[in-house]
Amino acid sequence: VFFNYAFRQDFISTFDAYGDAIKYRSVAPSAVSAKGGIGVIIRSLSTSLDDAPHTGTTRYADTVKKIPAIAIGNTTSELIAGAAGKGKIRATIIASCEMKDSVLSYNVIGELRGSEKPEEYVLVGGHLDSWDIAEGANDDGAGCVQSIEVIRTLKTLGIRPKRTVRAVMFMNEENGLRGGRAYADSAVAKGERHILAMESDAGGFTPRGIGTSNFSAKQLAKLKSWAPIFRRLNVYDLDGEGGGADIGPLQRTGTAMAGLEPDPQRYFEIHHARHDVFENVNHRELKIGAVVMATLVYLVSEHGL
Amino acid sequence: VFFNYAFRQDFISTFDAYGDAIKYRSVAPSAVSAKGGIGVIIRSLSTSLDDAPHTGTTRYADTVKKIPAIAIGNTTSELIAGAAGKGKIRATIIASCEMKDSVLSYNVIGELRGSEKPEEYVLVGGHLDSWDIAEGANDDGAGCVQSIEVIRTLKTLGIRPKRTVRAVMFMNEENGLRGGRAYADSAVAKGERHILAMESDAGGFTPRGIGTSNFSAKQLAKLKSWAPIFRRLNVYDLDGEGGGADIGPLQRTGTAMAGLEPDPQRYFEIHHARHDVFENVNHRELKIGAVVMATLVYLVSEHGL
Repeated sequence: VFFNYAFRQDFISTFDAYGDAIKYRSVAPSAVSAKGGIGVIIRSLSTSLDDAPHTGTTRYADTVKKIPAIAIGNTTSELIAGAAGKGKIRATIIASCEMKDSVLSYNVIGELRGSEKPEEYVLVGGHLDSWDIAEGANDDGAGCVQSIEVIRTLKTLGIRPKRTVRAVMFMNEENGLRGGRAYADSAVAKGERHILAMESDAGGFTPRGIGTSNFSAKQLAKLKSWAPIFRRLNVYDLDGEGGGADIGPLQRTGTAMAGLEPDPQRYFEIHHARHDVFENVNHRELKIGAVVMATLVYLVSEHGL
Repeated sequence: VFFNYAFRQDFISTFDAYGDAIKYRSVAPSAVSAKGGIGVIIRSLSTSLDDAPHTGTTRYADTVKKIPAIAIGNTTSELIAGAAGKGKIRATIIASCEMKDSVLSYNVIGELRGSEKPEEYVLVGGHLDSWDIAEGANDDGAGCVQSIEVIRTLKTLGIRPKRTVRAVMFMNEENGLRGGRAYADSAVAKGERHILAMESDAGGFTPRGIGTSNFSAKQLAKLKSWAPIFRRLNVYDLDGEGGGADIGPLQRTGTAMAGLEPDPQRYFEIHHARHDVFENVNHRELKIGAVVMATLVYLVSEHGL
């Protein structure tokens, strides 16, 4: 079965379009297998005008046979759809994907110990792993270097934060969130109190907003009292929902969650595709994102949340 | 004289940094010549990390000899500055620039005649000319195609605007604004009443705001009453000053001026340099800019200003 569902270009937020199209990659193979289909080809979840395939998670129900499922690029999808309209077509899938055994790996953590309330943590993070199709420069090298940059900025400015600031590069986001889960388990076991966790995992693009979840009304009011500061950084939108996959497991501890919201227009051109390389990260956009993160982390480490 | 003034990367708005650095290109050659200098080399006005030179207007006072003045890239500037710190250096300027005679050219105009108040004009525009170093895809091919797109969108949607909507591709912005001046002269001579002129001339990047000038308090209030509509397009900032070089001469007729404000982070990597090509315009960013322009033009053509 070939699913030629085109990523919708008419949404202003490409993340809305991603949410709209993702079922074809995530659950369609199971559905096809359940009906006796022998393979699935999907049109990539991508805004791009080129032919690059975009990979990503596909899940099979335990009750079905795992049939081959691949993603192809936008232009080839159009060609196949055109040919299919004219008669029967035959496809041969040659794929070398396999699921390898798990190996031991680690989150990477750096911190600046708080001077007044070291037992309160302000976390900033991204994830170290990426799909093997490219470097994962935007997903999520950007979030990792921005998190390191938050610590570096505070140190360079000679700021010893009142609360402990921790930069966490999570491992294994793309394949099961094991780093995020292990981190939350560890925080619970050690009784670490995280008052804010902020993630950058939407690309190293120019920041437009900070999304939140698990904020109390009082916490949201405090964030919004800082709106004039963020506005000077061209960050206007503090109303959106946001957080991050890796910090998600911390939510059960009551931690307020924030996500850097970069401009979304270019993300799904490179997301999970071979273009997600260093050259497609702009140095100013990346740095201003780090400035926004450092600003929020500093404000919360000084004034609480 | 070599001016190694680095484009400031610490401004959030690169246009502020451009304003800060532009004197080295625009007036330094005259100042050097007045002091008996024989040539000027400037560091390019650019945020980029590469070595591309960025061209642009240089003006000589009538009272001085026109001495050679060239711009070099950022990395070569650093090399020369390093060498100059260690002792005398010698530079040979080989330049083929010349000022050619003027030739006759034209603005290109398309319009949709208004159904109720055809004598009131809503103008949207960009400029056709560019520096010869590249295509000028962002400066200002983007503004031209966006202006055409405003007309195309209204036609495709079957909207006959109440007021006349005019898309103007101005000629000769980079070298003296002659197209803009001729247009304003013509509008005055014909008694055409322009109630809004909007320009896109800051690159085809994702839109963030609409800047204004020459708006009355009442007109600004009307624009801001439409803020929720623009917010849905991720356009938050209606507070900035803006307009455009080409529409500037219309200001004397009392016309309210607006400028599309795209995200400024990448503009001065490609501005007036060989990278300002089609490949460096993102299709979604360009189109969303056109959507914002079409939205404002439609609102004003329907409801006045």
